[in-house]
Amino acid sequence: MKEFALIGVAGFIAPRHLRAIKETGNNLVAALDPFDSVGVLDSYFPNSDFFTEFERFDRHLDKLKRQGKKVDYVSICSPNYLHDSHIRFALRQGANAICEKPLVLNPWNLDALEEIEYETAGKISTILQLRLHPSIKRMKETYDNVDTLTEVDLRYVTARGNWYGHSWKGDISKSGGILSNIGIHFFDMLIWVFGKVKEISIGALDLQSASGTLLLERARVKWFLSLKENDLPSEIRSKGLRSHRSMKINSEEFEFSEGFTDLHTESYREILKGHSFGLNDARPSIELVYRIKKLYGDKNN
Amino acid sequence: MKEFALIGVAGFIAPRHLRAIKETGNNLVAALDPFDSVGVLDSYFPNSDFFTEFERFDRHLDKLKRQGKKVDYVSICSPNYLHDSHIRFALRQGANAICEKPLVLNPWNLDALEEIEYETAGKISTILQLRLHPSIKRMKETYDNVDTLTEVDLRYVTARGNWYGHSWKGDISKSGGILSNIGIHFFDMLIWVFGKVKEISIGALDLQSASGTLLLERARVKWFLSLKENDLPSEIRSKGLRSHRSMKINSEEFEFSEGFTDLHTESYREILKGHSFGLNDARPSIELVYRIKKLYGDKNN
Amino acid sequence: MKEFALIGVAGFIAPRHLRAIKETGNNLVAALDPFDSVGVLDSYFPNSDFFTEFERFDRHLDKLKRQGKKVDYVSICSPNYLHDSHIRFALRQGANAICEKPLVLNPWNLDALEEIEYETAGKISTILQLRLHPSIKRMKETYDNVDTLTEVDLRYVTARGNWYGHSWKGDISKSGGILSNIGIHFFDMLIWVFGKVKEISIGALDLQSASGTLLLERARVKWFLSLKENDLPSEIRSKGLRSHRSMKINSEEFEFSEGFTDLHTESYREILKGHSFGLNDARPSIELVYRIKKLYGDKNN
Amino acid sequence: MKEFALIGVAGFIAPRHLRAIKETGNNLVAALDPFDSVGVLDSYFPNSDFFTEFERFDRHLDKLKRQGKKVDYVSICSPNYLHDSHIRFALRQGANAICEKPLVLNPWNLDALEEIEYETAGKISTILQLRLHPSIKRMKETYDNVDTLTEVDLRYVTARGNWYGHSWKGDISKSGGILSNIGIHFFDMLIWVFGKVKEISIGALDLQSASGTLLLERARVKWFLSLKENDLPSEIRSKGLRSHRSMKINSEEFEFSEGFTDLHTESYREILKGHSFGLNDARPSIELVYRIKKLYGDKNN
Repeated sequence: MKEFALIGVAGFIAPRHLRAIKETGNNLVAALDPFDSVGVLDSYFPNSDFFTEFERFDRHLDKLKRQGKKVDYVSICSPNYLHDSHIRFALRQGANAICEKPLVLNPWNLDALEEIEYETAGKISTILQLRLHPSIKRMKETYDNVDTLTEVDLRYVTARGNWYGHSWKGDISKSGGILSNIGIHFFDMLIWVFGKVKEISIGALDLQSASGTLLLERARVKWFLSLKENDLPSEIRSKGLRSHRSMKINSEEFEFSEGFTDLHTESYREILKGHSFGLNDARPSIELVYRIKKLYGDKNN
Repeated sequence: MKEFALIGVAGFIAPRHLRAIKETGNNLVAALDPFDSVGVLDSYFPNSDFFTEFERFDRHLDKLKRQGKKVDYVSICSPNYLHDSHIRFALRQGANAICEKPLVLNPWNLDALEEIEYETAGKISTILQLRLHPSIKRMKETYDNVDTLTEVDLRYVTARGNWYGHSWKGDISKSGGILSNIGIHFFDMLIWVFGKVKEISIGALDLQSASGTLLLERARVKWFLSLKENDLPSEIRSKGLRSHRSMKINSEEFEFSEGFTDLHTESYREILKGHSFGLNDARPSIELVYRIKKLYGDKNN
Repeated sequence: MKEFALIGVAGFIAPRHLRAIKETGNNLVAALDPFDSVGVLDSYFPNSDFFTEFERFDRHLDKLKRQGKKVDYVSICSPNYLHDSHIRFALRQGANAICEKPLVLNPWNLDALEEIEYETAGKISTILQLRLHPSIKRMKETYDNVDTLTEVDLRYVTARGNWYGHSWKGDISKSGGILSNIGIHFFDMLIWVFGKVKEISIGALDLQSASGTLLLERARVKWFLSLKENDLPSEIRSKGLRSHRSMKINSEEFEFSEGFTDLHTESYREILKGHSFGLNDARPSIELVYRIKKLYGDKNN
Repeated sequence: MKEFALIGVAGFIAPRHLRAIKETGNNLVAALDPFDSVGVLDSYFPNSDFFTEFERFDRHLDKLKRQGKKVDYVSICSPNYLHDSHIRFALRQGANAICEKPLVLNPWNLDALEEIEYETAGKISTILQLRLHPSIKRMKETYDNVDTLTEVDLRYVTARGNWYGHSWKGDISKSGGILSNIGIHFFDMLIWVFGKVKEISIGALDLQSASGTLLLERARVKWFLSLKENDLPSEIRSKGLRSHRSMKINSEEFEFSEGFTDLHTESYREILKGHSFGLNDARPSIELVYRIKKLYGDKNN
């Protein structure tokens, strides 16, 4: 049984990590969040210690280490711009890091993490759950050896209310914006399935939506991402739904609306077996996002 | 349709208020919380404005007022010790206040609120949902006219993990401790059903449990409250449950484990019809908690 | 003797207000700041109560009021974007407000404050200390009746280190930027002496410097403001100084480098005599800053 | 020239460290404080970077390290209870730590720091400035070889206003209380001059004052510490002073009211020469404070 600590336990994504730790038969010994509404711990690890201050959390992990009860993994669910610092903390503690996507906001943050991974015994893993989705795995098998260009048309609209802009997710310096925060999943998946990025173009980019095209080794992709309710298809809105995912492959709809629920647990299972996605797996999509933002900036300023 | 604002939207209890506002056909225009993980708004009122700073929230409500779109109600779900200040804010805005229990921590806070309620047009309501529970209502009908003393044995154990002590709920100056935070529900219910407090005694009182007896007009009550897992009956623990409520009336178990889910909505419905529980309704249980704490202090210091 | 409360006591400007309260023979009963390094209180009002939470400060002032010890004035030294909310708080308490410059960031905030001043008994005063500076007063006397256009060339450079951009002062939504935070003093002074704004033009405007021209009723003004060390004259830098103020009037240097030290006390003295600068006094410079920013925006976007 | 970073730059004691870094001819490259009123940097190191978030500060120091511009020293001026975590951070960065007194709150925190000092290349130094005070140095010379028991009567009263109890200094879990926060200086000095602790007794101990006796190898000490204005001698209060230090040695007043102003610079000078006070120097006074608190607890609970 492995011992875990978790940073960001009051946030939206933390319950999936708590559940993954539990379902893989492991234990949480300490959790951190500046916000103290963390009753969710009662459903998973009521005996976990909890801290609202980083320094006290650090002291506690250090004490455990000196008592021979070193934490094996630190799960990181903090706002995106804090990921690399929290990863460094984990590795300096002598633990491994399991970090939510996007692993970091900029390619050079990956270089920095490479050095610390090299200097310590710890391993950095990220959550790229789409790669574990059964449909996506089949898609990869199907297209891995296709040598004609596949046409992909990806649209993902997930409406967010006004609060979003007033949270860290709406602050581009903290979340990286819609490309880093939402797009990264799809960019990683597409590159994984269809190969390296050859060309990019960018249509629109603002805080709430983005669109463009990609030429990958084995596909030509049109993509559109949006947080705006108005971009939802009317039949979706009329049902009161707020999210719509569509991917057409050579004009046929590819079904992948199901099967997302336990991919964090599956991710943990793989990580614990040593099959984790690391810095090099995360790099292509992080570089792509960076290039798209730069292209947009060059075009518009 | 009434316009609402809500303070404390990231907290544990806020979703019941959001749901109550929605289910009573009303609208939320603004919400406040220092913590910005408030995706819950998307499920109820995605168009609501959201603020992490009190001053900006104040400015927004003030602007709405000057535009003739004054907020009618402010729902208050903040930590207990902030309730009276947030109620004052609501009333000074020209709105009514709907405040989570415990309305305030001390009887003299009620006196202060009486003055502000008198000075403004607003009304202060609190949530005393047990009084709306069908079983409890029947209990009240049954015992309202009984002139012998009923024997009541109340035990409520709801296990909380280590986090609790590190949150505001574990800080007695902020939550009022187990008596204010957990006990107040039951004390209010008992007084409501069985009449005024005649005598009190206190057994134990610490951050995690409390016990004592009450002599009410029409009942003799033994009560026990606990947050400790070890105080759960073993058959409850073995099922993996963390909460157990038992009330014996003249040695017979009184069933009230069901029917709690929509009492906030019911509370809002009554408030909107003008049947709200106000300062005077809240006072007896707040005074009782104060007396119990004082008795304990006098006995032990 | 008047009773004061003060908001923002840990900040840079607070000591001048504390001193002014003391030197005018008055008393501070309560102070607020989220940051608790407020040993400065010991030098002025060690018996003042102190709070780090707004709600507890509010409760305390409310309690004093109900005890017949209502606070007469609330001095406001908080970050600029919080001023109007803190003023509203003061007036709703039944107190008067004395607010640091810039009183507010936008002209419409003044409209909002007018309404609250109208609705309550309180008076809003701001600190426009240059109008109390002996040299500036003489300047006004000199130019009040001159009917030819005076040429004014104003340069103010006050170097700020890197920290500035990482503080609220470097966040334009919080400070209003260099025009609101630094320029407002000089714009108010110039309008006060030379009359209404007839025409404006803008040269540069960024987070660290700004320049432009004004045509006032009785003067043509060239102005330049900067926070950059490199904009200091070399003879100033070589002395290790970091601030330089120069105003040429019809090509002659106008001396006003001295006499600033106790203008806050003088301001308080006038306010307490009923000669305060209010909303209407603050309005022209706030409107001018707004117009300059808008002009810059129109020109550049 | 050595490169410094500083944690806690907005606090009361930071200017002495800034001055010491400057006066010893060194440079500050980065500073951290959650509170952003840090204009003090302009007087010492305007080019220093500044951060309000720990994680961004960490990222910056890490970047400097990878660029071959590693920070040599981290100066730590944070609230007492954070010292050990900030020291760990410094050493893990590959830097040395210079930490304000009290180095830590409990003896076992020293054990933890010993391990990290052993594991890394960094050195931990603390500021024990009284040992550098010329009068105290002379005292040590005088009493080092005296083999009779000297009678010492130490009284230190430094009045603090109400704010103190509402700051971290008034929270015993954060400051350690009056013994850790104020007493530690004198306990260290007395042990340094008069030798090991043989016996202790405790009179009073509360948040604002403490008294007791010590039997040291070469002295019998009566000590009294207070933060209460009422404990000041009336002749001191009548002068408007708020602090009084008195030490009688064999009934004769020992003069040491002067000469404190530049002891931080002197401390830095020694540290930079390799003559620093480390964990073992800090230990006896930290252990004494712990023993006094424990004795008081055993006696009163």
